[in-house]
Amino acid sequence: MLNRQFRLLSRPVGLVVRGDFEYCTTPVGRPAAGQLLVQVHYLSLDPGMRGWMNAGQSYMPPVAIGEVMRAFGIGTVMESVSEGFAAGDVVVGLTGVQDYAVADATAFTRVNPKLAPLPRFLGALGLSGMTAYFGLLDIGQPRPQDCLVVSAAAGAVGALVGQIGRIYGCRVIGIAGGERKCRYLQEELGFDMAIDYRDGDLGRSLHAACPTGVDIFFDNVGGEILDQVLNRLAPKARVIICGAVSQYNCAKTAKGPANYLSLVTNRARMEGFLVFDYAARYGEASTALAGWLNSGALKAREHVISGLERFPDAFGRLFTGDHLGKLVLEVRPPG
Amino acid sequence: MLNRQFRLLSRPVGLVVRGDFEYCTTPVGRPAAGQLLVQVHYLSLDPGMRGWMNAGQSYMPPVAIGEVMRAFGIGTVMESVSEGFAAGDVVVGLTGVQDYAVADATAFTRVNPKLAPLPRFLGALGLSGMTAYFGLLDIGQPRPQDCLVVSAAAGAVGALVGQIGRIYGCRVIGIAGGERKCRYLQEELGFDMAIDYRDGDLGRSLHAACPTGVDIFFDNVGGEILDQVLNRLAPKARVIICGAVSQYNCAKTAKGPANYLSLVTNRARMEGFLVFDYAARYGEASTALAGWLNSGALKAREHVISGLERFPDAFGRLFTGDHLGKLVLEVRPPG
Repeated sequence: MLNRQFRLLSRPVGLVVRGDFEYCTTPVGRPAAGQLLVQVHYLSLDPGMRGWMNAGQSYMPPVAIGEVMRAFGIGTVMESVSEGFAAGDVVVGLTGVQDYAVADATAFTRVNPKLAPLPRFLGALGLSGMTAYFGLLDIGQPRPQDCLVVSAAAGAVGALVGQIGRIYGCRVIGIAGGERKCRYLQEELGFDMAIDYRDGDLGRSLHAACPTGVDIFFDNVGGEILDQVLNRLAPKARVIICGAVSQYNCAKTAKGPANYLSLVTNRARMEGFLVFDYAARYGEASTALAGWLNSGALKAREHVISGLERFPDAFGRLFTGDHLGKLVLEVRPPG
Repeated sequence: MLNRQFRLLSRPVGLVVRGDFEYCTTPVGRPAAGQLLVQVHYLSLDPGMRGWMNAGQSYMPPVAIGEVMRAFGIGTVMESVSEGFAAGDVVVGLTGVQDYAVADATAFTRVNPKLAPLPRFLGALGLSGMTAYFGLLDIGQPRPQDCLVVSAAAGAVGALVGQIGRIYGCRVIGIAGGERKCRYLQEELGFDMAIDYRDGDLGRSLHAACPTGVDIFFDNVGGEILDQVLNRLAPKARVIICGAVSQYNCAKTAKGPANYLSLVTNRARMEGFLVFDYAARYGEASTALAGWLNSGALKAREHVISGLERFPDAFGRLFTGDHLGKLVLEVRPPG
């Protein structure tokens, strides 16, 4: 039984390319005391993984050169040397980009595979869902009638944020690239409005969409979009910085938000967060999200790309692709 | 009796020059019902006034072309057509840059001139004091042992922020330009440390001064200093945006803080505020500030420039000068 792996070969400059990784095959490891052997079925593709490839300490250490690329995945326990798990359990955790993971049992959480298709445990019922839930509700503090703007609104987190905002009574405007994504937001997800940032003057569109200003901005993108929204803040606005997908592949320094002084004139705040800080409350979010999914108030969508061997290209589609919802890589062992 | 005035003649580009104003003399006006005639003794010089000279709606409308330049001042009521005030009262309010102001009584607050020298009612006992007090305490939420960094630390607001931080048990590091200001902070005001941003590598100095990161940054400067401090935030840091004196005279767009994603990795927030929102609580702040001044826990300093006719140059010194503490213009009527 062989284990295919993507190991980080060099620190990417700009967009990730295949040559940044070594694609190799090794024997499957054996779990030691307290560990599990997990066969990975699906891997989560997240923009934040791009940051893990860079040198420099962040909220997690960087992936070392030569190390298996870090990724969250869902899989089945093949062998357990931990009392808390048994062979056959379906678990979510940091599996890495490989067919089989051997890691401490503490790194995994068991899920009930009868409750949803497996990829959903990486999306709406996984960290994307937790990110949307805690970011919007804890940092954003939405109130009915608030004007909520979401960037990368057709993406894994953005699509959930907008829908949760609707559930909380906000007027929700999504910013996305292209007509197809905008149609998806308005026609399938019930956003009040969608703005195609590639089409026309974003500032003018925002002004028309939010005549009294933006009360909450959930930003996944950064760059020019952040600056335009800063220009349109309402008094006491909350700007939630979840990520900056427009900046992750910039070889040079990120573009700072030139209009940040709008925070002063509008007595507004801009706040970052990390979903991992909310680990003790994941249960609360999972219950809420599952309830909304069951009632139809929340719609989740995954875009599945098949084949571990396609990891570098699949990852790149996060930044350039036309997918809707959560991007997931199906591992599918060969043969 | 004539009234000298500075009227805004054109919107300044970059640093204010004398030619941006018309210096003229008009008859002194007469107060109508509900109004006061106030002889102005001192004018407050604040960086925020630079923003009022620009076109475009902000938290206050811009000063119109041809209008007397807006400024806070302290003066004596010469004539009152309002029940709340009598001739001889000393009042603070938006007098404008002129010898005599005629304005609605509601725009003025009476002060007790026996409590402090008049310029202090524009500084530590005026809006500078209110700004320091509410910005640091309400937005910054200081806790004992917090590492508090203040930029423009020898200025009107910064010097107070650092001292209030000390009173609340913070470890206080001031950033200022030049050795004289740094000595003032450490030797006279009791800052734990002062960093001369012109001398050496600011990032390295910050790292040495705040080995566990910056818990609170009170920023009056923006630009490169803000970026350097963002790079050194502690988890859950609070970045208080009071102003951006380095950016007010930029003809082009302000420089945005390129390191703003540090807000995400450190789960930190950046928040703006306007002191005017706290008007209902000015009494609380005044009582506290006066108490600290009396006990010697807080030291206030004003730098007085004499002669209304010097307004444009005096104002420019806010951005280029070597003054310590609050910059005030003494009006001194001619003759």
